[in-house]
Order: sequence, then structure tokens, then C-alpha cells
Amino acid sequence: ADVKKIAVIAGDGIGPEVVAEAEKVLKRTEELFGYQFETEHALFGGIAIDEKGTPLPEETLKVCQSADAVLLGAVGGPKWDNNSKELRPETGLLGIRKALGLFSNIRPAFIFDCLKEASTLKPEVLEGTDLIVVRELTGGIYFGEKFRRETANGQEAVDTCAYSEHEIERIARQAFDIARTRRKKLASVDKANVLETSRLWREVVIRVSADYPDVELEHVLVDNCAMQLLRRPSSFDVIVTENMFGDILSDEAAMLTGSIGMLASASLGEGAFGLYEPVHGSAPDIAGQGISNPIATILSVALMFRLTFGYHEAADSIERAVKEVLDAGHRTGDIAVDKSTAIGTLAMGQLIVDAM
Amino acid sequence: ADVKKIAVIAGDGIGPEVVAEAEKVLKRTEELFGYQFETEHALFGGIAIDEKGTPLPEETLKVCQSADAVLLGAVGGPKWDNNSKELRPETGLLGIRKALGLFSNIRPAFIFDCLKEASTLKPEVLEGTDLIVVRELTGGIYFGEKFRRETANGQEAVDTCAYSEHEIERIARQAFDIARTRRKKLASVDKANVLETSRLWREVVIRVSADYPDVELEHVLVDNCAMQLLRRPSSFDVIVTENMFGDILSDEAAMLTGSIGMLASASLGEGAFGLYEPVHGSAPDIAGQGISNPIATILSVALMFRLTFGYHEAADSIERAVKEVLDAGHRTGDIAVDKSTAIGTLAMGQLIVDAM
Ligand SMILES: CC(C)[C@H](C(=O)O)[C@@H](O)C(=O)O
Ligand SMILES: CC(C)[C@H](C(=O)O)[C@@H](O)C(=O)O
Repeated sequence: ADVKKIAVIAGDGIGPEVVAEAEKVLKRTEELFGYQFETEHALFGGIAIDEKGTPLPEETLKVCQSADAVLLGAVGGPKWDNNSKELRPETGLLGIRKALGLFSNIRPAFIFDCLKEASTLKPEVLEGTDLIVVRELTGGIYFGEKFRRETANGQEAVDTCAYSEHEIERIARQAFDIARTRRKKLASVDKANVLETSRLWREVVIRVSADYPDVELEHVLVDNCAMQLLRRPSSFDVIVTENMFGDILSDEAAMLTGSIGMLASASLGEGAFGLYEPVHGSAPDIAGQGISNPIATILSVALMFRLTFGYHEAADSIERAVKEVLDAGHRTGDIAVDKSTAIGTLAMGQLIVDAM
Repeated sequence: ADVKKIAVIAGDGIGPEVVAEAEKVLKRTEELFGYQFETEHALFGGIAIDEKGTPLPEETLKVCQSADAVLLGAVGGPKWDNNSKELRPETGLLGIRKALGLFSNIRPAFIFDCLKEASTLKPEVLEGTDLIVVRELTGGIYFGEKFRRETANGQEAVDTCAYSEHEIERIARQAFDIARTRRKKLASVDKANVLETSRLWREVVIRVSADYPDVELEHVLVDNCAMQLLRRPSSFDVIVTENMFGDILSDEAAMLTGSIGMLASASLGEGAFGLYEPVHGSAPDIAGQGISNPIATILSVALMFRLTFGYHEAADSIERAVKEVLDAGHRTGDIAVDKSTAIGTLAMGQLIVDAM
């Protein structure tokens, strides 16, 4: 039988709670569809710092490398915030992205019907908003040379932002491919009026666009994009941009939908392999209380089924189940209008499993 | 008598129209308050490219350098968008900032009563929003070394982001000083979990904060700030950040107030000298029709009076006049609910001058 190996990284904060519910969904999928999953747990982030002295232990990387996909909960928390660079959860995150060749981060941002009112934007502005941010994830200023030096003006710190044609081309192709399966509109975001990397970015995107005459391409300056996301969010379909801009804009886009606690994301490389995680963070303030919302992590499993395994029917089943449970009025505390009726993490997970 | 010299740069698009109204306000201030202004016009941006072959002619720089302040309309337009780097209006903008030592860009973002409904944010979220973004303007990735090189992966483009302690300290002090005159809250925005420049930024801001025990300091990561501006805009007082982050966040902040067409900005250096301009751009689509809104440029004059000349009474008079005219229901097309009742640039300018 075709056994799919999934590396499971629960991580920190609410990570373990929400991942546990997602694993129940994996189990239920086996029963319902006859698929087979083999999960292997691995330490990563703060807990790995505590137990292994490094955020990304060698074993964890091996577990991920021998898996078909990775399911990640969340990492980080105040406990490790003041650690030196090598002992911070974020360093593990950057390390795993690079080591696994995950050059593309895909973040859908859309509105859940039941959360229409949760956005700070007016409903009429938000109406129809359904976009994907495709963020380059292993290049740019995140991974360029960094150092300090002494100057006449005291210490100076330096970060280097570099992009090669190859790095830009592969992320551009992926964004065009995604746009093709959707409304066929691609906004490429750069700062070509100031940055050399952005000028190369724009040149390469224009060159690649020749292979996608059916996709409408626009170039948007990053400052303008930050504004247009607020003014006309529904006019965007796919947005492609470099690492640092993508970090900022994908968070802005997710937040404006009001659904940030429900959104899943995928980090992909050249093949089918991918790392899947909720967009939300480790929420240390509510960890361990059993009140966190497992839906974004459960939907990350659906995304894994679609993008890595091609299990579309099973993905449909999960997404339908989530919708059904929400339509029936069940809510965790973060999305409940009347907090007194909120259910816990376990109850929400069970309802979704039962509805599959 | 103490004659103040003002360099006037009308620029491109609607620039000349809105600057003309601001000059009437200068004239009226002379009559009402007995001040004396000597204005000198200079070419800059697209028009300077057309007439002098460079966006920032030597003469223009000289006019600015011998002035006490600069009033700028707006620069740029599609006509010059595809020019080579040296022949683009933006290059002039970066050049003038550097040449005049304008290391600090001050962008107030608040809500005009008459524009409460213009924002895409819900009124209850926006309520009380009144913040200032203090953006570092002559350092960072904007001014670092830029180049291309050949690699095994094709061409590679490189931008360098550098900050010295001195550069960070002077902008931090200015932000703390401003916060002190307001609600005494400063949010310093960085990406200290990834960038070396941000780590130095945070160290220096913390060091400077020792001199401002009365100001409450928080550190916010740039991606989180892009979200928090949407979620709790009214909780920010002063935001200080580096050049690239400031470009993005100040546009986001201005747009969320819904008042972007009415906001003024100042670019300052060490002394009282400053360059003042509206936050909005050159709006080439409506240029020459006499329908543009001169209020942001007129309010830039008020800001100049406050920050460079210390003419607070005259600044009050301008700001009061603007409020009076708006309260009386007069609107240019961009802010009119019923466009058929909109008045033109000249009429709006005259009403404000008359109300001073
Ligand atoms: C934690 C941090 C390094 C990370 C990033 O900036 O990439 C995070 O903000 C994200 O978007 O996944
Ligand atoms: C035109 C451009 C170079 C400029 C900048 O990025 O600084 C503009 O966006 C601004 O904010 O004044």
C-alpha cells in the first residue's frame, strides 16, 4: 500500500493542542478513504531548545527529509525571546525552510462566512475578498550576509538582500501557475523605483509572463500594495512578492479578512513535498487551557491533501465538515460572539471528525 | 525684518495647482500677521527631467539650500516611469533628501471629522485614531550599495541595508521628543528576529529610552505592526521605524484613516530647516482639470509654520480656516459625497484664505 509519511512538529504554546486535533482528522481520513498515514513526531522550536539545546535538531531535519510532508503547529514564545540568535525558535524556522528547500510560502486569505463581522474592515469593502499571497521564502534580506563593523559613526549593522534570476523565476512560475487555476490575475509586488533586486524581480517576472498570456499581470509598488489591500482587497487574486515584503503583506492581508485564526498555509519546494501550518502563532497566553481553535491546523491538513498528496476528495470532506460544524453554530472562544457558549479544542476537533 | 525664504517646488501632475493655493495662504499670512516670506520657485522631478535633463538640477538644490524651508507639491507620472534610473523623478526625491540631510520623515495620520465615512475601516475601530509615523529617511536599503553580478544561477541583484548607531540614535531621539509632546507612547518597529540592522536598531532605541523615562516604549515586529494598525489603530501614538518599513507602514496608516488626500508631511534634519509636502501623489489622471484638493498642501504650510518657523498662531489660523470651510460643507470632488456639488481647486483655496 501507498503509505504517506508525515512528520509532525507540534512545537510550542498551543501547537501541541491544535496538532492533536489535526491528527484525529488524519486517523479519520484513513478510516473513511482507506489511505494510510505514518506519522513521526519531532522536536522543533522552543521545546527543542529546552530539550536538545537547539531549535532545529539534526534528528528533526532527518525526520522531515524522509517524510512526504510536514505538519507544523506553531513555534516560539516569550520564554525564548531574549535568547541569543542561535537559541531562538525563529532561527529554527529559517533553518528548516532553507534545509528543506521551501522557497515558496502560499497563504490564502479569504473570509469565512461566520466571521464576516470579525474584520475591522467594512463588510461591503471585504465582500468577495479571496486572495493568495505567494511569498518567496528562502532568499532576499532574510538569508543574505549579516554583520557588524566599527565606523566613525559608531557601530554599523549590515544586512544584504540578494536575488538571482533563478530564484525569481521559480517563484514567479509557481505564482503564475496558481493564478491560472483561479481568476487569472497576478499582482507582482516590488519596489522597482528604489531597489536593484526589485528591478531584476520585475524584469524576470515580465519575461516569465510571456509563457502565461492568459494571466493578467500588474506590477504594484510595495507601499501602494499596503494601501490597495485596504482600499480594494477583493480586486486581488494572486500576489507574488519577495521574502520581506511578503512577510508584511501576507500578515496585513490575513488580518484584514478577520479570519486570521482560521487560515492555513503551505510552504513548498520544487516537488510535491510541503510543510503545512496554521497562519496564527503559538498564542502562549492561552496555551494549555484547552480553549484554542484547531480549525486552521485541521485546514492545513486539507491543504496538504490537495497540494502534496492530490487527495482532493478527502480534502473536500474536511473542508465540508468544518463548514458544517460552523454553520451549526459551534464556536471556539476566539470566534464566538457569545463567549459563554464557546466550546473547547477537543470538542471542536471531535465535531469536525464526526462531520467528515 | 525677518524675511523667511521658502523654496517652492511645484513639481508634476496636480503639484502646480495645489501649490498655487498654498502660496495664496502664504500671502494671506503676511497680510494678517505681518510676517514676510520670499518664495523662490525651482524645477524638480519630471518637469526638471524634461527641461533640464535631470530630476534634481544643481540650481534647484542651491535654491533649497539657501532657503529656510521647502514647500513641495508632488512629483512623478507615467511619462517618466520607464526612464532609466538617472532620469526618474524618484531619483530626484532620494537625491534631495540626502543632499539636504532630511533624515526624518514625519507623517501624521488622523481622521478628519468630515471624512469619518471615507475609511474602509469600521468607524468604531477608527475612533480616536491619531498617530504619527516617524520614518528614517536617508539610510537603510534605500541608500546602501546596489549592484548586479553574474552567478551560476544567472544574474544576481544585490541591495545593501546598513544603519549606524548615530543614524538610529538621532531618529530615535526625535521620535521620543515628539512622543513627549503627545500621549507619551512610542512604538519602535523592527524585524529584530531576523535582521542585524534591526537588532542594532532595538539596542540603540533601548539605550536612548533611558533619557525618556516618561515615554512608554514598546517594540513591535514589522509584520505584527502591519496587523496591529488594522486591529487597533487608535492604540498607537508615535511609531518610529527605518526607511523601508516606514515607507510601507506610513502608507498603510494614512490609507486606513480614509483621510490620505488631506494629510501633510514634514521631512526634517538636524536644525529647523524642513521640507513640507502633501502625503498624496501627483495624481496625473486629474491634473490640469482644476478639480484637485489643495487642503493637504495648505496644511503642509501650517506644519511648516509650526515646525520650522514657530509661527503657531498663523498655523492655528490656517487649520481653523480649513475646519471652518469643511464644517460649512464645502468639498472638492475627492471628498464630496455628492460629486455634483463639488467645488474646484481655486474655489477651495479662496474659501480657506477668506476664512483665515
Ligand atoms: C518568525 C519569523 C522569522 C517569520 C518570518 O518572518 O518569516 C514569521 O513572521 C513568518 O511569517 O513565518
Ligand atoms: C517615490 C518613492 C521613492 C518614495 C519612497 O519610497 O520613499 C515614496 O514612496 C515616498 O514615500 O515618499
